[in-house]
Amino acid sequence: MSPAFDAVDVICTKRDRHELSDDQIRWVIDAYTHGAVADEQMSSLAMAILLNGMTRREISTWTAAMIASGERMDFSSLSRPTADKHSTGGVGDKITLPLAPLVAVFGVAVPQLSGRGLGHTGGTLDKLESIAGWDCNLSNEAMLAQLDEVGAVICAAGSGLAPADKKLYALRDVTGTVEAIPLIASSIMSKKIAEGTGALVLDVKVGTGAFMKTLENARELARTMVDLGTDAGVKTVALLTDMNTPLGLTAGNALEVRESVEVLAGGGPADVVELTVRLAHEMLDTAGRGGQDVAAALTDGRAMDAWRAMITAQGGDPDAPLPTARHTEVVRAGADGTLTRLDAYAVGVAAWRLGAGRARKEDPVQAGAGIELHAKPGDVVRAGEPLMTLHSDTPERFARALDALAGGWHIGTESGSAATPLIMDRIA
Amino acid sequence: MSPAFDAVDVICTKRDRHELSDDQIRWVIDAYTHGAVADEQMSSLAMAILLNGMTRREISTWTAAMIASGERMDFSSLSRPTADKHSTGGVGDKITLPLAPLVAVFGVAVPQLSGRGLGHTGGTLDKLESIAGWDCNLSNEAMLAQLDEVGAVICAAGSGLAPADKKLYALRDVTGTVEAIPLIASSIMSKKIAEGTGALVLDVKVGTGAFMKTLENARELARTMVDLGTDAGVKTVALLTDMNTPLGLTAGNALEVRESVEVLAGGGPADVVELTVRLAHEMLDTAGRGGQDVAAALTDGRAMDAWRAMITAQGGDPDAPLPTARHTEVVRAGADGTLTRLDAYAVGVAAWRLGAGRARKEDPVQAGAGIELHAKPGDVVRAGEPLMTLHSDTPERFARALDALAGGWHIGTESGSAATPLIMDRIA
Repeated sequence: MSPAFDAVDVICTKRDRHELSDDQIRWVIDAYTHGAVADEQMSSLAMAILLNGMTRREISTWTAAMIASGERMDFSSLSRPTADKHSTGGVGDKITLPLAPLVAVFGVAVPQLSGRGLGHTGGTLDKLESIAGWDCNLSNEAMLAQLDEVGAVICAAGSGLAPADKKLYALRDVTGTVEAIPLIASSIMSKKIAEGTGALVLDVKVGTGAFMKTLENARELARTMVDLGTDAGVKTVALLTDMNTPLGLTAGNALEVRESVEVLAGGGPADVVELTVRLAHEMLDTAGRGGQDVAAALTDGRAMDAWRAMITAQGGDPDAPLPTARHTEVVRAGADGTLTRLDAYAVGVAAWRLGAGRARKEDPVQAGAGIELHAKPGDVVRAGEPLMTLHSDTPERFARALDALAGGWHIGTESGSAATPLIMDRIA
Repeated sequence: MSPAFDAVDVICTKRDRHELSDDQIRWVIDAYTHGAVADEQMSSLAMAILLNGMTRREISTWTAAMIASGERMDFSSLSRPTADKHSTGGVGDKITLPLAPLVAVFGVAVPQLSGRGLGHTGGTLDKLESIAGWDCNLSNEAMLAQLDEVGAVICAAGSGLAPADKKLYALRDVTGTVEAIPLIASSIMSKKIAEGTGALVLDVKVGTGAFMKTLENARELARTMVDLGTDAGVKTVALLTDMNTPLGLTAGNALEVRESVEVLAGGGPADVVELTVRLAHEMLDTAGRGGQDVAAALTDGRAMDAWRAMITAQGGDPDAPLPTARHTEVVRAGADGTLTRLDAYAVGVAAWRLGAGRARKEDPVQAGAGIELHAKPGDVVRAGEPLMTLHSDTPERFARALDALAGGWHIGTESGSAATPLIMDRIA
């Protein structure tokens, strides 16, 4: 029987709303990884999964098959417990940067394997690469050594971890199949389980700037991932957090590093501090080290010390000036009133177009590009006052960024705003 | 804007159950034909179309875009009207062979651009190639000349006709997206409209051996195709005909040519004669030459003369002995009774496995392979009597063919059978 015949069989099973068997799932993931199932077959299957869904058993087998496609890491030789955090991606979400060193302060090792931005959401590695000398590529040995000595590492996932996911993720990105909850859940969890973390806190973003636009979808994704983690022996908790408004006051690589350093110095925007502290509590609790005064470590310099050690260990210079964009353009308020809405998606797309993100995997990013916000929803503004500053090395990009921002904010006469709480739900 | 970005946009529009705009459809067909939309993007879109459907406007624009991807033929220089027949594919469906010369007898030109078998259904070109010397490849000029002189031609569609369909058809075949009604309808009709026939009769098969398993789906497909033809100025009629049982008493290339020649000699199985005569009536009516005694031309030798002229014009020798398979195996009735069921799909798959069909486009077929039936539903059989004879050059294939046939027929004690009528509906 030819492999193509079997691939069509598997596709038609899901297309016709039947459950895939464990054997079908294992076969299709293995055959896709090795090229016996073609891209055009996997994308057709992915679309059928997106539209027809998967059962908990199917998702669990799919995830296990992706883990089995590559190597697994092992942190059991470390003297401390491990905890990792994963965000489903948002605009201005730089939380990993202050969070990893903050958690390390309390004796929990944070092995943060991170990715790059794609589309309107930023990527942690892109942000840290605006620090002179910082290198995201570590061997497994170097990673373990740094976890032992510094307690925190943020680096690129090795290509050996869930290679099936790597291939499938790139495919989904160009075939309109990113938004399938079973595929999002198994993509994230296969990497986190293969990475070998003992505890995992998921930050599932909800809103215009997130992949999950509704609380209902976000809950389903969170529940699916928590189940997958729990089934695989990883203590897993999920927070559902608001992404209708950008997080903090910056979106863009160096701009977000600067803001993260402010948080580590005891300052920074309230929402970034709130989410960082809450996620640190969740990670410490889940790793069995709860009940500590986390916020104090941001103000007394301990988290900053851990940050400097973490950056230095990977060749970065924490004192080097951060790159800035060659051009800026200021957007001003057109009227007096209260800023009632500032759309995360509009800001994300605008920052992307300014050069902070990339259209294709191969594209470079501009370290200095992005958007600086001067007001957040609830703030009173006056006509002519700056609302935001756009940064780019390539001024011809301003027009398209402004197009993306058009209609993305609203100044009203309402006093105050009925803002959504930042942390919307917790699923364990 | 990069082409990949647009492709994802188009895919997501259909994925999210919105209508595609005319511009989106024209762009995606053109970009796919020229390689700017990748196979994995088109297959994902095809699956979304299969699961979410298309409106009449979308299907009409899609079909027009496929026609626009290539050249159009023109039969307006001919001195007679043209009529073509298309079957959606079945088991033992050799009707084109006697039909084309039969219709030509009555002064209507039949430009029958045909294809090859794939899967369990046979292909007209494969059948005719079992005639020594017969060549399916004609230039447009040779085709026109033969239509003027002989009145009938059965040949391969040139690669210039709807190249987008050619590419998309091959893709659908390996991605589980063959069964999408909008894509089946536009695939068939784009070629028939581009071919330039003035009248078209569609034979939409219904049943286990057909792509449409239910009368409801077959009606939808027939209605979609009749509308597409009518909108494009081609007089179009569809018959819905039974394909739960194989047509005639043979499935396989040379075996079906032999049976077709029997029909042209005034004999042959009743169902093949009935459908041939009915389709000839529909074609002549639609082409404005109705009201003639079609059946007479089968018994008085005129249709046979036209067949011989048609085969000879393409280098074939109508008197050459037909190839036969090197091995045969007889399947016998296990009990006395009435044959109540003989499943077209089982017979089609068995004939395919015997070598009459191909697993991949590149494979050769065995001219002599196939199945000869000795009884049809309704016939009384006795234990030990031959039910069918399997033919193959490669006897190791018998076992897998018998597997396909297992459970494919039933001998009961009921007297007579409540057979479905051969012609189930007519849609105009």
